[in-house]
Amino acid sequence: MIIVLKKGATKEEKENIINKIESLGLSVHVSEGKERTIIGAIGDESILRERPINSMPGVESVMPILKPFKLVSREFQKEDSIINISGDEIGGNKIQIIAGPCSVEDKESLLTTAKDVAKTGTAFLRGGAFKPRTSPYSFQGLGEEGLKYLKEAKEATGMRIVTELMDPRDLDVIYKYADVIQIGARNMQNFRLLKEVGGMDKPVLLKRGLSATIKEFLMSAEYIASEGNRQIILCERGIRTFETEMRNTLDVSVIPAIKRLSHLPVVIDPSHAVGRWDLVSAVSKAAIAAGADGLLIEVHCDPLNALCDGSQSLKPNKFAKLYEELKRIAKAVDRSL
Amino acid sequence: MIIVLKKGATKEEKENIINKIESLGLSVHVSEGKERTIIGAIGDESILRERPINSMPGVESVMPILKPFKLVSREFQKEDSIINISGDEIGGNKIQIIAGPCSVEDKESLLTTAKDVAKTGTAFLRGGAFKPRTSPYSFQGLGEEGLKYLKEAKEATGMRIVTELMDPRDLDVIYKYADVIQIGARNMQNFRLLKEVGGMDKPVLLKRGLSATIKEFLMSAEYIASEGNRQIILCERGIRTFETEMRNTLDVSVIPAIKRLSHLPVVIDPSHAVGRWDLVSAVSKAAIAAGADGLLIEVHCDPLNALCDGSQSLKPNKFAKLYEELKRIAKAVDRSL
Amino acid sequence: MIIVLKKGATKEEKENIINKIESLGLSVHVSEGKERTIIGAIGDESILRERPINSMPGVESVMPILKPFKLVSREFQKEDSIINISGDEIGGNKIQIIAGPCSVEDKESLLTTAKDVAKTGTAFLRGGAFKPRTSPYSFQGLGEEGLKYLKEAKEATGMRIVTELMDPRDLDVIYKYADVIQIGARNMQNFRLLKEVGGMDKPVLLKRGLSATIKEFLMSAEYIASEGNRQIILCERGIRTFETEMRNTLDVSVIPAIKRLSHLPVVIDPSHAVGRWDLVSAVSKAAIAAGADGLLIEVHCDPLNALCDGSQSLKPNKFAKLYEELKRIAKAVDRSL
Amino acid sequence: MIIVLKKGATKEEKENIINKIESLGLSVHVSEGKERTIIGAIGDESILRERPINSMPGVESVMPILKPFKLVSREFQKEDSIINISGDEIGGNKIQIIAGPCSVEDKESLLTTAKDVAKTGTAFLRGGAFKPRTSPYSFQGLGEEGLKYLKEAKEATGMRIVTELMDPRDLDVIYKYADVIQIGARNMQNFRLLKEVGGMDKPVLLKRGLSATIKEFLMSAEYIASEGNRQIILCERGIRTFETEMRNTLDVSVIPAIKRLSHLPVVIDPSHAVGRWDLVSAVSKAAIAAGADGLLIEVHCDPLNALCDGSQSLKPNKFAKLYEELKRIAKAVDRSL
Repeated sequence: MIIVLKKGATKEEKENIINKIESLGLSVHVSEGKERTIIGAIGDESILRERPINSMPGVESVMPILKPFKLVSREFQKEDSIINISGDEIGGNKIQIIAGPCSVEDKESLLTTAKDVAKTGTAFLRGGAFKPRTSPYSFQGLGEEGLKYLKEAKEATGMRIVTELMDPRDLDVIYKYADVIQIGARNMQNFRLLKEVGGMDKPVLLKRGLSATIKEFLMSAEYIASEGNRQIILCERGIRTFETEMRNTLDVSVIPAIKRLSHLPVVIDPSHAVGRWDLVSAVSKAAIAAGADGLLIEVHCDPLNALCDGSQSLKPNKFAKLYEELKRIAKAVDRSL
Repeated sequence: MIIVLKKGATKEEKENIINKIESLGLSVHVSEGKERTIIGAIGDESILRERPINSMPGVESVMPILKPFKLVSREFQKEDSIINISGDEIGGNKIQIIAGPCSVEDKESLLTTAKDVAKTGTAFLRGGAFKPRTSPYSFQGLGEEGLKYLKEAKEATGMRIVTELMDPRDLDVIYKYADVIQIGARNMQNFRLLKEVGGMDKPVLLKRGLSATIKEFLMSAEYIASEGNRQIILCERGIRTFETEMRNTLDVSVIPAIKRLSHLPVVIDPSHAVGRWDLVSAVSKAAIAAGADGLLIEVHCDPLNALCDGSQSLKPNKFAKLYEELKRIAKAVDRSL
Repeated sequence: MIIVLKKGATKEEKENIINKIESLGLSVHVSEGKERTIIGAIGDESILRERPINSMPGVESVMPILKPFKLVSREFQKEDSIINISGDEIGGNKIQIIAGPCSVEDKESLLTTAKDVAKTGTAFLRGGAFKPRTSPYSFQGLGEEGLKYLKEAKEATGMRIVTELMDPRDLDVIYKYADVIQIGARNMQNFRLLKEVGGMDKPVLLKRGLSATIKEFLMSAEYIASEGNRQIILCERGIRTFETEMRNTLDVSVIPAIKRLSHLPVVIDPSHAVGRWDLVSAVSKAAIAAGADGLLIEVHCDPLNALCDGSQSLKPNKFAKLYEELKRIAKAVDRSL
Repeated sequence: MIIVLKKGATKEEKENIINKIESLGLSVHVSEGKERTIIGAIGDESILRERPINSMPGVESVMPILKPFKLVSREFQKEDSIINISGDEIGGNKIQIIAGPCSVEDKESLLTTAKDVAKTGTAFLRGGAFKPRTSPYSFQGLGEEGLKYLKEAKEATGMRIVTELMDPRDLDVIYKYADVIQIGARNMQNFRLLKEVGGMDKPVLLKRGLSATIKEFLMSAEYIASEGNRQIILCERGIRTFETEMRNTLDVSVIPAIKRLSHLPVVIDPSHAVGRWDLVSAVSKAAIAAGADGLLIEVHCDPLNALCDGSQSLKPNKFAKLYEELKRIAKAVDRSL
């Protein structure tokens, strides 16, 4: 950690700062410049992070040297992590599509949608049984009944199931049915929930919070990894900005930026990012071109009667068309779909 | 709900839209303008909110007429809600201060801080036993042990206890010790947690999420109210913007804006909003001048050795000075402290 | 325009509102719903936009029906605009690359860079002679001398010149040398400058402001079009968000979103969007996949010694490699490069 | 400047970086830590700012030590700057109010408004003759005719005139009529305009850009100061965030934050910040409580017929009432109004 002293910091202030750092077990390296004195604290930086050195008299600013995440960092592991889900891999050369309705609404519509999606070659089915809804008066999901329908869809199509966990008390039931457990954007910093899935032996798809920085996103992944579970898939789903034309703003540059910082696979949820079905196709292609390892796309056999997020859902025929277009983009970046 | 048709929408498209609205049990009012045809849907708007009318062919845009929250709205209740906590009121003429350390770290420092805070006349003590921390390697709180220290501090000073609930599984233990249960900013849309505190008979202090709109904030309060608990205190604690000089950006205009929309009391957390102790005093005064019903201020007897948020904590003597200054501002807006 | 009245608005308030609308020459259509009375104002909406109807007693909210831009709207012109610049088109099937240094620094480096860029087949050369710099102590550009070097580069390579206009007083000199006049992000709402280029017969490349909404962006294009100049190229170059890992956040969804609203071509500036050369390649590919009509890429023969934005500049060999990769993406979306 | 090397940076990379720094005339101080090697560059940091050291092989990150602004910094001048405008001071103990219509629309309404405003004791009259409007179809201001009316209002009331300069070509005419020249938010980074007013001998009121950081805001002030003009008044007028309930988000913490960084006076424009007259009073009081040196308030004798920003304008009687309330807040922070 680097501590920059104020111009005119007194000798006593400087000594207090040095004493404080040394008392925490770190050693000190002082550099007197023309304009500023700079103190380098050498040793375990994490000890200092917890201390408000920046509010000590004489301190102008404090700059950490190391990144706060470890296990999920590219420095810790050079090779890309590849997550194996019953034989299907996320993070390898093949790009994976995770498609299906926002929420499981009834058996018929789920099975219809699932079968249509499966025809394209899509290996993963998404669908929420427990739904986080902004309004208490909106449809909140079918609960375990929805999970049972997902199981039926799995049996009928062979697809793997991705479904969301919202509450630590639902862990057992979700664990029973899910192949990948999703942590939603609103729970990205629900740290107790992160610890719970960190203690499990199932892959976790972690969505980026609406206004989470990349560092915070990776810190949340670190929570999971620090409990032992390294099967983590990161998912960008749009961030909140001033723009209102789209539901959120898809941050496509996050794909190469995270890949430099972390070894974890990155998938994109274009449906939530834009919130309008008519823009999903264009941004899906952009995501693949930028290096995404997969896409999470909302597909519904009858969007107009969907109980949740119908506006952003593709009809199966539009999804099938997009799937073919994505194959061409995948090939243009030397990957397969 | 108002549905604006595209220029050139066909007769068939128009009829489809009208049929859809009528099939949901609403009636329809059509207005043919020079540039656009407009369809008004008359009846229970909440039915339409769930349907993606905006993605029907021929629709240009859809505008809801009613606000999505009810119980917490000023329209539902004209008079200000006053929350009574064992005799001390939040939302009345008297402005309440809630002060104390970010987290409970040990008995001694908590009692020292609490006694210093109580001397000023402050009626509420804050302190976290379960702490949401960005890093899994940071101090996570003392758990129930911390709550016991809070109880001792309450016995020693007579102050009421405000402490955070992070996990539905901690509800019973938090309920036992807290006078006001805090829902933190990261959990503002943890809807299952909101429902839990909505089913209780204790006041809830609900913090605004980092990037939550005012409408979403009130919808989260509606979750609590819809379960029966109307004792809700709203807390603005800074929103996330592009500015990095401060930890967050305090949205002071939220105070009068919410008071027009809702009958609930509004308190401000200047400490988290700015994240720097040297700016806390100025923005605390601003909040009172703008009409806040209270402040949540971090005070620590030894900020430099605090395990959490020391940079934004005031020392007890600085807090005591601020308290006197706030009295003058309160008086200037015809309130007391 | 739709005016929603407050619940409980008085008869007098309603009549005042109706009288006001009628006095401005519009007619009125009243719809009494169960919860709200709604007044539709029929006629020239632009008259009402200028009036604060929303602050009249009894009014709850006001919703415009029409978009505020006309000439640049897709409704006004269904076909894509194709801008012809001495035979090279922007907005047609062929995707155009505009490459070169951020600023013109000296003749040698400009010519070296230009020749390297031209080898790939790139038809447009970018380079600033007048530079908007955050600091008054930074290199401010060579002025007309820089424009002369651009002319030499044009003669040597046959490329068209894209260069920025910052001040209406430089119009004549820029007009003399530029094939496309760039209006920078910081001047997107310099309305006097927009009017000046609107009165000219040269194509204008208009960059989106750092925090401009899509509607504001199109309104600035409307300023240019309303003065007669319809040769407008829109350029997204990243918006400002809370994220600090990249210089700005590239809003890739703006490409399909604008194409629905407007007939104007859209190009992307990946270099300013991310501000780091190592991310330029990924987001360039994303932009083409999403439907961009061109890219504006910073290339410098010696980035480490560049006087401006060296961190985001590609070396010519990296640019040549990217160019080949972009060809493959272009082909995958049925376009050429 | 501090350069942090990547873990595993080679000896050659390190030497290249050292050579580069030394070749620019700075000296080097190397510190080998357990995790990272850190290179301190000692000497004139501004030379290095222009160079992309961060993209040299082996570099992980670069941290500047000094702030990029000088003349406007608190370090350069410890005492508060007090700007004297024909005897009235901005930045001293007395808080100044600058009130009047958004734009000058006609002589009668201006004089009516001005006389009403003057009655309260307000010393400064605002009013735009050249107006930056989002739409080319909106009222663009009366030009010099408007300035003449301002002069008449000045003669009738004795108030000083604050009016906006949008274009360097209007400098002479604005100079002739204005007592304080305003640079609007959209022109905060119109650097050529900043240089022009920097070369003048009249006070400048510089508004913060919609999405300008505090550092960028101070860099724009530095542009003015670097040309010789030190009579600069900073004005916060709301920043752009995700919130849509208000026009912008007033950043009240900017007042104490800037006062730590700079000696310049800070005034607040509550009218543009919130964009709704009904919130102006609350945030005006907040601004004074937080330490603002003045307020810029829109007042119009007939807001409903205003040609610009009527929704956010106070009627004279409401302004007079607010003025009295502000006196009480000013007194509570030991200042006068």
